[in-house]
Amino acid sequence: MSDVKHMKWWGWGVDGVAFHHENKPGFAPFVKMALDLDLTKTKGTPPEFEDIDVPASRASAEFIAELTGIVGEGHVEAGDLARVVHTFGKSLRDLIRVRVGAFPRTPDVVIYPADEAEVQAIVTASVAADAVIIPFGGGSNIAGSLEPLADEERTVVSLDLGRLNRVIEIDTDSNLARIQAGAQGPDLEAELEAAGWTIGHFPDSFTHSTVGGWVATRSSGMQSDKYGDIADIARGLRVVRPEGVLVLNALPSTSTGPSVREMILGSEGRLGVITEVTVQVHRIPEKREILAYLYPTWDAGLAALQAISESDATPSITRVSDGNETMFSFATSKASKGISSLVTKGLGVFLKSKGWDTDKMCLSFIGNEGGTELVARNQKIIAGIVKKHGGVSVGKGPGVLYDQKKFDTPYIRDWFLDWGGSADVSETAAPWAKLPELYRNVIASANRAFDEIGVKGWIMAHLSHSYHSGACLYFTFAYLDSGDAIAHYDVVKGAIQQAFIDSGGTLSHHHGVGLEHAPWMEQDISTEGVTIMRGLFGAVDPGRHFNPGKVLLDE
Amino acid sequence: MSDVKHMKWWGWGVDGVAFHHENKPGFAPFVKMALDLDLTKTKGTPPEFEDIDVPASRASAEFIAELTGIVGEGHVEAGDLARVVHTFGKSLRDLIRVRVGAFPRTPDVVIYPADEAEVQAIVTASVAADAVIIPFGGGSNIAGSLEPLADEERTVVSLDLGRLNRVIEIDTDSNLARIQAGAQGPDLEAELEAAGWTIGHFPDSFTHSTVGGWVATRSSGMQSDKYGDIADIARGLRVVRPEGVLVLNALPSTSTGPSVREMILGSEGRLGVITEVTVQVHRIPEKREILAYLYPTWDAGLAALQAISESDATPSITRVSDGNETMFSFATSKASKGISSLVTKGLGVFLKSKGWDTDKMCLSFIGNEGGTELVARNQKIIAGIVKKHGGVSVGKGPGVLYDQKKFDTPYIRDWFLDWGGSADVSETAAPWAKLPELYRNVIASANRAFDEIGVKGWIMAHLSHSYHSGACLYFTFAYLDSGDAIAHYDVVKGAIQQAFIDSGGTLSHHHGVGLEHAPWMEQDISTEGVTIMRGLFGAVDPGRHFNPGKVLLDE
Repeated sequence: MSDVKHMKWWGWGVDGVAFHHENKPGFAPFVKMALDLDLTKTKGTPPEFEDIDVPASRASAEFIAELTGIVGEGHVEAGDLARVVHTFGKSLRDLIRVRVGAFPRTPDVVIYPADEAEVQAIVTASVAADAVIIPFGGGSNIAGSLEPLADEERTVVSLDLGRLNRVIEIDTDSNLARIQAGAQGPDLEAELEAAGWTIGHFPDSFTHSTVGGWVATRSSGMQSDKYGDIADIARGLRVVRPEGVLVLNALPSTSTGPSVREMILGSEGRLGVITEVTVQVHRIPEKREILAYLYPTWDAGLAALQAISESDATPSITRVSDGNETMFSFATSKASKGISSLVTKGLGVFLKSKGWDTDKMCLSFIGNEGGTELVARNQKIIAGIVKKHGGVSVGKGPGVLYDQKKFDTPYIRDWFLDWGGSADVSETAAPWAKLPELYRNVIASANRAFDEIGVKGWIMAHLSHSYHSGACLYFTFAYLDSGDAIAHYDVVKGAIQQAFIDSGGTLSHHHGVGLEHAPWMEQDISTEGVTIMRGLFGAVDPGRHFNPGKVLLDE
Repeated sequence: MSDVKHMKWWGWGVDGVAFHHENKPGFAPFVKMALDLDLTKTKGTPPEFEDIDVPASRASAEFIAELTGIVGEGHVEAGDLARVVHTFGKSLRDLIRVRVGAFPRTPDVVIYPADEAEVQAIVTASVAADAVIIPFGGGSNIAGSLEPLADEERTVVSLDLGRLNRVIEIDTDSNLARIQAGAQGPDLEAELEAAGWTIGHFPDSFTHSTVGGWVATRSSGMQSDKYGDIADIARGLRVVRPEGVLVLNALPSTSTGPSVREMILGSEGRLGVITEVTVQVHRIPEKREILAYLYPTWDAGLAALQAISESDATPSITRVSDGNETMFSFATSKASKGISSLVTKGLGVFLKSKGWDTDKMCLSFIGNEGGTELVARNQKIIAGIVKKHGGVSVGKGPGVLYDQKKFDTPYIRDWFLDWGGSADVSETAAPWAKLPELYRNVIASANRAFDEIGVKGWIMAHLSHSYHSGACLYFTFAYLDSGDAIAHYDVVKGAIQQAFIDSGGTLSHHHGVGLEHAPWMEQDISTEGVTIMRGLFGAVDPGRHFNPGKVLLDE
């Protein structure tokens, strides 16, 4: 395959890296309790590539030759592995299907352009050939935004931006950096950091996602409370379209009518191929510190975070887990270092003496960045709010560990699949007033769904981002499944998504729509909202060449 | 006319209120110096309504009867005064034309619905009758967004939202308020303030503009550094369209594809009629204070504001005027109170002793809001930055006066028109690195334009809003004109707008596009940007019923 790096064809992350539970003493009892999973039994293994059947490419030799003429030998692939890697993202639905070789449709050809001019030539050639173009960044999408439609009869091109991976320039006067769309998180951040800057955007997928992908799906990161969502960070854009390049200059703000910038954000490839993003960057702060807190109940933690968001403090991370997710955090801590050691030692005794039910307590992380004085000031304000809501500080040790392992969680899902388990996430945002009931409704809906499919299910949640008027709640669910995994997933996932909408939340705060969430679009943005968006797509891509069927299902 | 309040038909603001120079001792010498205007001569007066010719309404009696059936007697007007009031906004072009009765086209009928259901009925009836609908809020627009196209042959309906003027509810838990689109600034703010809240949105037009108008034109206010532009503040929207109401729930953030919310923002009526906006609101801060500073040069002031924007301080207002605008501020100060009294007393002597050229010094206002401790902390950080850039503090007196008279400036233009003078504003935004040269280019371009039309022109500017990556520069220009005022205005305004674009700025930061700025759209958002936006408008309003020709000129 090309020298562009990709994740495992069957799962998350890089080959040779996986989740291990052996050094986490609380993990085996936790999964027994939560999921009835017995780790003394024998685990399955991921499939071998040669054991799966891959549909043949439908690309004509002529078209492949034409594409090769644009990018040169070695940058066009039509082999099975390349096409499988580019068929799906990494949702549970994707991982289940890839393991059994269920490919409703694969791309017919994968192409790796070297620059924007080559992207333009590919787009022109593909449209002329009546082919479909699906832009591909890091492949971490979990909303079904990458897969070709099952009934697509035209040639499907997966346009991999992996070679457009440079930080082009940093405008140190304006705090702006021009970055090619295919640059992955760690690579672009390393280039920025070497010059003393940070983008401040760290989604869970950071290690394997690209700035173009962040824009295409309206990504949000762990420090977005301070740095903003990608919609705030991305100021300028270049997008290749059939007739030429859309160029949106990097502007701090503008009143030039309906925002074309905000049409490209979240467009998931339907309006063209993003080739460059000019992002806001920040000088690396003098100090960065994450402190951990515990609350006796979810309601207390939620109320505390709301109060923090309304205070004069300006934290970079505001996160609180519910009781179940807190238990999970303890269970995945190493014996010697984790927060679980704190709790099992004196802290647990102390909290019980205060009347806490330690099975229901909620772990919170609050991060602050900036000058030393600002960090101290924020922490003081936050300490007062935590105390007022009955919380206690547990210092910075857990925060350091959280920071180190924050990107490792997706590996657990592959490990769990080896045990026959299904696990995935769903997240939403809603006004503060609606969050308590939304949370209860989602938990209740998920539990009803677990009953319906006859599994012992587990669901846990955290608040991941705070805003002036509301917050994002992020749910993770899991269960052992010996039946029809896709059908069962549809039941659980669908129940949670419907509970979001019914409770006044949105279908997704930062994972995008794709195919997975598209059925809820009309309920989310109203019939007229869909009419307007469908009008946009239809007018701008009448031939349906750009990732058709995503965001809005075909009528 | 209807009991909905409107501004003077021929100018800004309410009847009986006007600019007076008699209590401002520095004003007469200033205008003599700057504009060669001799105030000892006799001033003209605004026209009398009976002296102007108004084209007849083209609305059929049947259509007016149909509209009356929807809203009831007294809420439909086809008389000359109502139609003139609804023909233009308040740009210089508008004021010149209205004074001489130059109406290329007026609306044929003005209608005042009482609620959203009536708006829906009007929209349905108008589309069925192949009429054109132009929504009307406060009528303060200066971009030509309100006037019917000169060659419009269909019936034109001015849909005045003035009766939809209530704050419907305040969600005190989520910091959100539902407000009807026609609510004017002072009215909605008074309702919010009575409950302890503020919207934090105070554009120059505040006293005569509406929340619907703010959304339709992407407004920005004087405290937007803290509270955000209206694009940040407006979370939820209701927009009446032919087939029903677009409903966008108030969400803190969402990843539901291209943002329909950000399509309505800046849409200037082209996507439907905004009937309700759910805005973020804030508790009235404990303290609010504006401090004034002086800098020896524009470059020093600009650099200081850039440094403030990158600091840990969180001001609500960041403003610095250039030397010319500072002179203007002094000239419009009252003898006993203004900043001019400070300067003419000891301060001027002191600054000259420091080597300042007091004709070039630059006045700055920095506002802070929040808890007393936050305000003090911000002011301390800012004081350090000011000092580092060679500035001096001149206390809070000037800021109090600025706060009191900040909404009065538009009255000067009508007074100046009585003297045969033309004055207007143009504003832009650009990255920090481009601002110094942009400023110089605009000044040079304006002066060339003044030469071209043979006038002694005056141009002055201030930085009005700071962002992480750039700022808004706001220019005001004026000259006495005894020739073809419109043709001359085109020369000057066009030169300034072109200098914005050529220097890397946008055509407008917060006044919108309308007809006035539409010629620069393709240069601003690129050909493909126009293609996308035109596609949206064409798909969503194929019959061109909604304020056609605005934002993008007809092809």
